[in-house]
Amino acid sequence: MAFASTAAKNAALMGAATSLRDGADLLLEANRADVEGAHAAGLSPPLVDRLTLTEARIASMAAGLEKIAALPDPVGETIAQWRVPNGLEITQLRVPLGVVGIIYESRPNVTADAAGLCLKAGNAVVLRGGSEAKASNAAIAQTLASAVAAAGLPPAAVQAPAEGGRDAVRILLKQNRYIDVIVPRGGESLIRTVTELSTIPVIQHFAGVCTTYVDAAADLAMAEQIAWNAKVQRPGVCNAMENLLVHRDVAERFLPPMIARFRAAGVEIRGCERTRGIVPGVVAATESDWSTEYLDLILAVKVVDSLEDAITFISTYGSGHSDAIVTDHYPSARRFQRAVDSAAVFVNASTRFNDGFEFGFGAEIGISTNRLHARGPMGLRELTTYKYIIQGSGQIRE
Amino acid sequence: MAFASTAAKNAALMGAATSLRDGADLLLEANRADVEGAHAAGLSPPLVDRLTLTEARIASMAAGLEKIAALPDPVGETIAQWRVPNGLEITQLRVPLGVVGIIYESRPNVTADAAGLCLKAGNAVVLRGGSEAKASNAAIAQTLASAVAAAGLPPAAVQAPAEGGRDAVRILLKQNRYIDVIVPRGGESLIRTVTELSTIPVIQHFAGVCTTYVDAAADLAMAEQIAWNAKVQRPGVCNAMENLLVHRDVAERFLPPMIARFRAAGVEIRGCERTRGIVPGVVAATESDWSTEYLDLILAVKVVDSLEDAITFISTYGSGHSDAIVTDHYPSARRFQRAVDSAAVFVNASTRFNDGFEFGFGAEIGISTNRLHARGPMGLRELTTYKYIIQGSGQIRE
Repeated sequence: MAFASTAAKNAALMGAATSLRDGADLLLEANRADVEGAHAAGLSPPLVDRLTLTEARIASMAAGLEKIAALPDPVGETIAQWRVPNGLEITQLRVPLGVVGIIYESRPNVTADAAGLCLKAGNAVVLRGGSEAKASNAAIAQTLASAVAAAGLPPAAVQAPAEGGRDAVRILLKQNRYIDVIVPRGGESLIRTVTELSTIPVIQHFAGVCTTYVDAAADLAMAEQIAWNAKVQRPGVCNAMENLLVHRDVAERFLPPMIARFRAAGVEIRGCERTRGIVPGVVAATESDWSTEYLDLILAVKVVDSLEDAITFISTYGSGHSDAIVTDHYPSARRFQRAVDSAAVFVNASTRFNDGFEFGFGAEIGISTNRLHARGPMGLRELTTYKYIIQGSGQIRE
Repeated sequence: MAFASTAAKNAALMGAATSLRDGADLLLEANRADVEGAHAAGLSPPLVDRLTLTEARIASMAAGLEKIAALPDPVGETIAQWRVPNGLEITQLRVPLGVVGIIYESRPNVTADAAGLCLKAGNAVVLRGGSEAKASNAAIAQTLASAVAAAGLPPAAVQAPAEGGRDAVRILLKQNRYIDVIVPRGGESLIRTVTELSTIPVIQHFAGVCTTYVDAAADLAMAEQIAWNAKVQRPGVCNAMENLLVHRDVAERFLPPMIARFRAAGVEIRGCERTRGIVPGVVAATESDWSTEYLDLILAVKVVDSLEDAITFISTYGSGHSDAIVTDHYPSARRFQRAVDSAAVFVNASTRFNDGFEFGFGAEIGISTNRLHARGPMGLRELTTYKYIIQGSGQIRE
């Protein structure tokens, strides 16, 4: 796979997209078996919904693969090149990571999305989805592997071992001789279990406890737009706002109309004492509210005395994902940018922009909360590593 | 530490260098206690030697810290910057990794070297050395912490907890809430144990089973120089050659003088059948010889039929560290560079150049055999991560 030409990889992706569309009936049939099993096992309706494939969802998977085919190939890029005094020429060259293991829960579309990104970056991929999606995942992986073979590439580059239950996952996570990185996709308990058991490096996509801070010098109309967008535009995702901090100097002007607007949209407000003093009828926030990722129409609101208090709040309760300040005061913007240690730090923009598509990466496998290797949106480039090529003319070390 | 100015970090490093020199007597006294303990415990002479500090070794530690002070500060560098269609300006900014845990064996100089690099990159460091070097490590860490405090930085940025035995290490390795990366420095069993137990990402510095391949189209005089250098110049290090492959077309011309020269320097040769047919008196290499890191004056030699066989040999037995081809044939050089998946791939140069100093990094904490985050020489830049700063003017997501 590491030597696959861009043309061959793109042919595999385009072929897989066509096969998914053409084979939609078979795929839907496989999926029906999974859905029936899930109903029989009494899975909750949201889980069954995630598991269910439709014509539209299959078309969207296929379109996703075509989009990946259209992206530039990250492999072979020269990251840096220099010459050292003895004449050696050193090139830092982008190469595939190797074998990527994806461990995920019930959504079968992850099979196609994750495999497509891995293939484009020249990696082999081992896909291990939830047992409730076994038939669907096997059918999608088989479609991909066939397209890979048809493009003249090794079909073993896409594997979806489904047998063996939890023990198999446990064994998989110890194969650091054969698998180079594990990317768990799912809830916090899945990620924690994988991190605990794995001897393979893990890239985590943890919770986003994201905060927007409205500074004393904020343009309040802009602040209202940004806070509204960060909370309401799509509340169920990791870059949505969970905490709103407001400087005490503007709290009395800002909070009443803001909270009224949130309430009209069905957002439940949990506030600190001062917030409750300003706006009647706000539920008291508890200590645990400040560090909770609601992923829902719930918002914790706190009035703070200063920018420094906002920064301390974010470092205490935030998850280092996406945090924003709204301010027109240049030193405050600079201080916030520097002091907040999150993957994405925003000035005068919605936290919702922490996203591989919005960053212009063209695709993403997730938003990493790791500090090593990949932080923030993880696109094709983050699915690669590098090696050094050193070209000489007989140099030996003194 | 992340906000420390370059000037303050350099002052801490220079101050620590001065204190190490000025306090050499106290340091030697602490070290004597460790050395006496090691003798009493019956440690082997090489281990006692590693443990022993001298005036010269202390001077060398101090000089190392001064060299780190002279290097450019990696923190604050803009790695990339771009604007997306909605006007948001995205900056990828280099920032410290956070808290680095170093777990090492008996050499007390690692305490100063590793801490110096971590500090310069704006990290806090938790140092856990071998119990046999307890007093020496504590004295060095205390010297560094005092110099950090004197420079107006938090002295807790250098910590060397020494109590609690193996249980303490086990507990340390589970603190993924507080420690961002673990760098084990030592033998293979230390690295394996750390990798097995740690829930914190580990950057490994594993064995170097390095191969030099002498192609049919090699300049044989150059090949002899390079092979000699890779094996003999310093045999006890990870980038020294352990396997020598020779194309069959040149084996009869190349091997007799090469092996005679190696033998004259006391190198033991273990060869394949064909090597033994060409040069009398060569011991037969066993299967395990091909994958052994001797770190000694021993060399495994094999005659191969083709470049492809050499590449297959390296991917089968090598450790992905440093591998070289000697050739004047352009397509062979290109093929080798591309196909060998090692951290450093050399054409017409000694594998001994896989080194942070030789690469021009100015210092190194080791040579990583990881594929994630840092691969090959690991200098100051590899002790950092990045965050994204996104500057807007009220952008919200549609």
